[in-house]
Amino acid sequence: MNYPNGLKKTHQACITTHKNRGMSLESDLNISNEYYREIDKAYIYKKPTPIQITKVDYPSRDKATIKEGFFTTPSTTDYNGLYKGYYIDFEAKETKSTTSFALTNIHPHQIEHLKNIDRHQGIAFLIVRFTTLNETYLYPAKQFVEYIETTDRKSIPIDIFKEQAYLIKDSYCPRIDYLKIVDKLIGGK
Amino acid sequence: MNYPNGLKKTHQACITTHKNRGMSLESDLNISNEYYREIDKAYIYKKPTPIQITKVDYPSRDKATIKEGFFTTPSTTDYNGLYKGYYIDFEAKETKSTTSFALTNIHPHQIEHLKNIDRHQGIAFLIVRFTTLNETYLYPAKQFVEYIETTDRKSIPIDIFKEQAYLIKDSYCPRIDYLKIVDKLIGGK
Repeated sequence: MNYPNGLKKTHQACITTHKNRGMSLESDLNISNEYYREIDKAYIYKKPTPIQITKVDYPSRDKATIKEGFFTTPSTTDYNGLYKGYYIDFEAKETKSTTSFALTNIHPHQIEHLKNIDRHQGIAFLIVRFTTLNETYLYPAKQFVEYIETTDRKSIPIDIFKEQAYLIKDSYCPRIDYLKIVDKLIGGK
Repeated sequence: MNYPNGLKKTHQACITTHKNRGMSLESDLNISNEYYREIDKAYIYKKPTPIQITKVDYPSRDKATIKEGFFTTPSTTDYNGLYKGYYIDFEAKETKSTTSFALTNIHPHQIEHLKNIDRHQGIAFLIVRFTTLNETYLYPAKQFVEYIETTDRKSIPIDIFKEQAYLIKDSYCPRIDYLKIVDKLIGGK
């Protein structure tokens, strides 16, 4: 969008990005998704953390305070939404390791979920950041599932990422432009 | 699926349905979505309730107890997922009224969200149950938005539902077979 003085509009999500460089993968993804919504490109959200509430107080009408609750195991992935008519679904994880990604990071029913989405023509993947290396990969669910089903290893070596996953280049705005990679996956459909 | 003795498999989600007849719309939808997953038809889930956590206790390693939290306003709808490659997104509401559905039931940013999903080729709708009448309607987002943008009314009369929405017939298993209606919406794409 061009403004009368010739300057481009500065997106709110980009200003935030600038302030918070070097944040967690989750923050970077939230800011990137906010940016995608701002420019009307995609509607992808992080789901709320699932919680089992066991005690609630009602200090007044219309007001409720949770007094006790527990985190429960998610049965699906953390992020999903809509892009170009496609259903997008992914899980995002960070690891400090410089050599491999431990499979204990992903719950078995999350793997099952990614398989289901892939089978039903959704776009399913993992986003894995090797924080020490500062490398972030998009690993399509199909390849990820094929790999873990044919190995006895308890982790995925980084070489497999280099071979089968897509490196997401760092950018300024959005911070993690993973939809560029999704465009490639859609192209292959 | 046919078993050697000629009996059909009884689905877990249907057994549950039978036990809990006359439950809330939310329970009926959860059981129906569970059934759709069991028969590998669709992967649609209710999102967890968004909560802002303000105090957490760690009585031991790996254990966390939420000691204070508040319900926050959802920015999207309650249900989304994947069916036949389509992105499905909807909000579900009950009303005791026999004449109309009050618009205060839906947050303005949820309406905005449904509009965005519809514009980007997702399948967006409301499911509204008139509990006193025992009638449940699927109201496509496009018609819903068009209606509220051309009226000053603060509610939608039931006659508009009868005219523009689809009555979902009660069934045994799944309890609310709303994907039958979604098939019609997809057919029109």
